[in-house]
Amino acid sequence: MRLHVPVSLRWSDIDAYAHVNNAAMLRLLEEVRIEAFWVTGESIDSTDGVGPRVLDGSPGADTLSLIARQEIEYLRPIPYQRTPLDAEVWIGRMGGASLELGYEIYSTAGVEPRVLYTKAATTLVLANASDSKPRRMTDREREALAPYVDEPVVFSKRR
Amino acid sequence: MRLHVPVSLRWSDIDAYAHVNNAAMLRLLEEVRIEAFWVTGESIDSTDGVGPRVLDGSPGADTLSLIARQEIEYLRPIPYQRTPLDAEVWIGRMGGASLELGYEIYSTAGVEPRVLYTKAATTLVLANASDSKPRRMTDREREALAPYVDEPVVFSKRR
Amino acid sequence: MRLHVPVSLRWSDIDAYAHVNNAAMLRLLEEVRIEAFWVTGESIDSTDGVGPRVLDGSPGADTLSLIARQEIEYLRPIPYQRTPLDAEVWIGRMGGASLELGYEIYSTAGVEPRVLYTKAATTLVLANASDSKPRRMTDREREALAPYVDEPVVFSKRR
Amino acid sequence: MRLHVPVSLRWSDIDAYAHVNNAAMLRLLEEVRIEAFWVTGESIDSTDGVGPRVLDGSPGADTLSLIARQEIEYLRPIPYQRTPLDAEVWIGRMGGASLELGYEIYSTAGVEPRVLYTKAATTLVLANASDSKPRRMTDREREALAPYVDEPVVFSKRR
Repeated sequence: MRLHVPVSLRWSDIDAYAHVNNAAMLRLLEEVRIEAFWVTGESIDSTDGVGPRVLDGSPGADTLSLIARQEIEYLRPIPYQRTPLDAEVWIGRMGGASLELGYEIYSTAGVEPRVLYTKAATTLVLANASDSKPRRMTDREREALAPYVDEPVVFSKRR
Repeated sequence: MRLHVPVSLRWSDIDAYAHVNNAAMLRLLEEVRIEAFWVTGESIDSTDGVGPRVLDGSPGADTLSLIARQEIEYLRPIPYQRTPLDAEVWIGRMGGASLELGYEIYSTAGVEPRVLYTKAATTLVLANASDSKPRRMTDREREALAPYVDEPVVFSKRR
Repeated sequence: MRLHVPVSLRWSDIDAYAHVNNAAMLRLLEEVRIEAFWVTGESIDSTDGVGPRVLDGSPGADTLSLIARQEIEYLRPIPYQRTPLDAEVWIGRMGGASLELGYEIYSTAGVEPRVLYTKAATTLVLANASDSKPRRMTDREREALAPYVDEPVVFSKRR
Repeated sequence: MRLHVPVSLRWSDIDAYAHVNNAAMLRLLEEVRIEAFWVTGESIDSTDGVGPRVLDGSPGADTLSLIARQEIEYLRPIPYQRTPLDAEVWIGRMGGASLELGYEIYSTAGVEPRVLYTKAATTLVLANASDSKPRRMTDREREALAPYVDEPVVFSKRR
C-alpha cells in the first residue's frame, strides 16, 4: 500500500529556469518521508499523521536515520504552484537494519490529467545514536511499516 | 488591517540547535509575503488567496520586486512543529515606488498561550524588468493594498 | 582523464547530525560540475578554470542544461572542515544530446589517508532555451569534453 | 580594526533575477563570521584563520551563539562571479553577554572600482549549552576580540 502525502512548494524551490530545482527535490522527498513515517519531537501526536510515524527523528532520539543512497529521475519539470503536489511514498525493500523508500511525485490530487513528475528512491540505515553503528529494526517498527511495503521503484533511465 | 497567513515549517529549516535557523526565517518571510500579496504564475487564481495578490511575481512579469532592506528580531527560538505557524503581515509604509512590509510570526493559531517568536520588516522597491529602474506603484496596486496599511513594526532591540 | 576540483563546505551544509546533509551534497555536485565544465556569465574567463568550461550556463544563454537523473551513494559521513574537499569529476557517457557526469568526492587533497566520501552521477540533457527541446551537442563541445571521458561510475549499493 | 574575509558565491545563491538572493546573503554573513571569529571542530587550527577564532561553535561545545537580531541593507545587486567577494567584518558593540557584528560586503579585492554591495549587522548572545541561558563573555574572549572593535554599522535606509 502506498501513502499519499500532500507536499507544498516554496518560492525558493524554484530556480532560474522557473522550475523546481534538482537539489530542492531532495528537500521535498525529506518532507514526504518525515510526514509519512517519522516522529519528530514533543509536539507530534503519532496517531495524527498520514502514516504510522514509527521511526523516531526527534532531537536526542536513540536512533539515527543515515542516508546511504538516493536515486532520482526528473521526468518532467515542475512549475511553481500553490496547490500541493501529490506524493506517493512506500517501502520498496525492508532489510535487517535498512529501508528503501520509493516515491512518485505527481501533480495536484484531483486535477486531470495527472502528471508524474519525479520517481525516486532513498536507502536509509537505522543506527544507534550512541555509536553510529547500524541496529536492527524492532518488531514494532516492522509491524507498523509492513502494510506499506510495495514493489521497489522501477527506474526507466538507469543504464 | 493585518493578514493572517499560515506558514509551515520544513525539517530542513531546523539547525543543529533544533530550532528554526536564522537564515531559514527569511525564506519563511518570503513565503508569507508571496502568499499575501503576490501573483506568481499561470496556475494562480488571484481571488483565491488570503490577501489581494496584486503584485506580479510571475516569471517574465514586467515588474521586479527588489529587496532593499530587511530587519529581523528573533525573540524566541522556534522549535520544529508540524502545525503551521500563524504569521501576521501588513504594509508598514507605502512610498512612491516602495513598500515596507511588517511581519509578526506567532505560534500556531488557536493554541494558547500565543507566543510571539519573530518580528521583521522588509523594504521592497518595484522596478521595471526591462531596465531595473524603480517605477511608481499604480493606482490599482495602491487601492488593493490600502486596507492592509498599519503601523510600522516597532523593534525593541534596535539601538 | 578526471578533473580535480576543490570544493569548500559551508557551515549551513551541516545538519543536526554534524555531517554534510544529503541534500546539500547535490549543491556541492552542482558547484563541482560548474567549476569544471560551465561558463557562467560575463565575469568568467573560460581559459581560467580547472576544466574546459565549454557549456554555457549564463543567464540568457541559448542552451539549458536540464537534469534528467541523479544517483548518489553516501559512503561515509562528511564532517565539517574548512579545508576544501577534493572532488573528481569526469564525463561517464557522452550521448547525442546528453551527458552523464561522474563524481567521486574525497577528503582534502594531500592529507593521508585519502577517504572516499561519496560517489555520484548526474545525467544532463542539453536543450534549446527557446523551446526546451533537446539539441545535439556541437562538434566544439564534443572536442572540448572528449579528453575527460572516462568509465562511468560503478555504484556498489545499487540493486 | 576590521578583518577582511574572502567569501565565495555558489551558483545556488543566485535567484531567478540572476543576482544573489536576499536570504542567501544571511548564509554568506554566517560564513564570514565563522571564518573570522569561530572555532568549529576538531579539524580547526585556531592559529590558522584570518581572525582570532575565539568563540566555540563546535558540535557539543559548552556555549551556544544565539542570534537575536539582524539588519541588512542590500545596496546593489550582486551578480554571479567566481572570484570571492571581499567581506569586512568587525565587532560593532561588545556587551556583557552579547556582541554586535558589523559587515560590509564589497566586490572582489584588488578589482577597481570597489563596489559596496551590502551592509549588515548581527547581534549574538552567548548562552550556556546546558540551559540556554545567557552567559558573560570570558576575559579571554574579550581580549581576543578587543582589537576588532570598531564603530557600529551606520545604516542609510533605516527610518
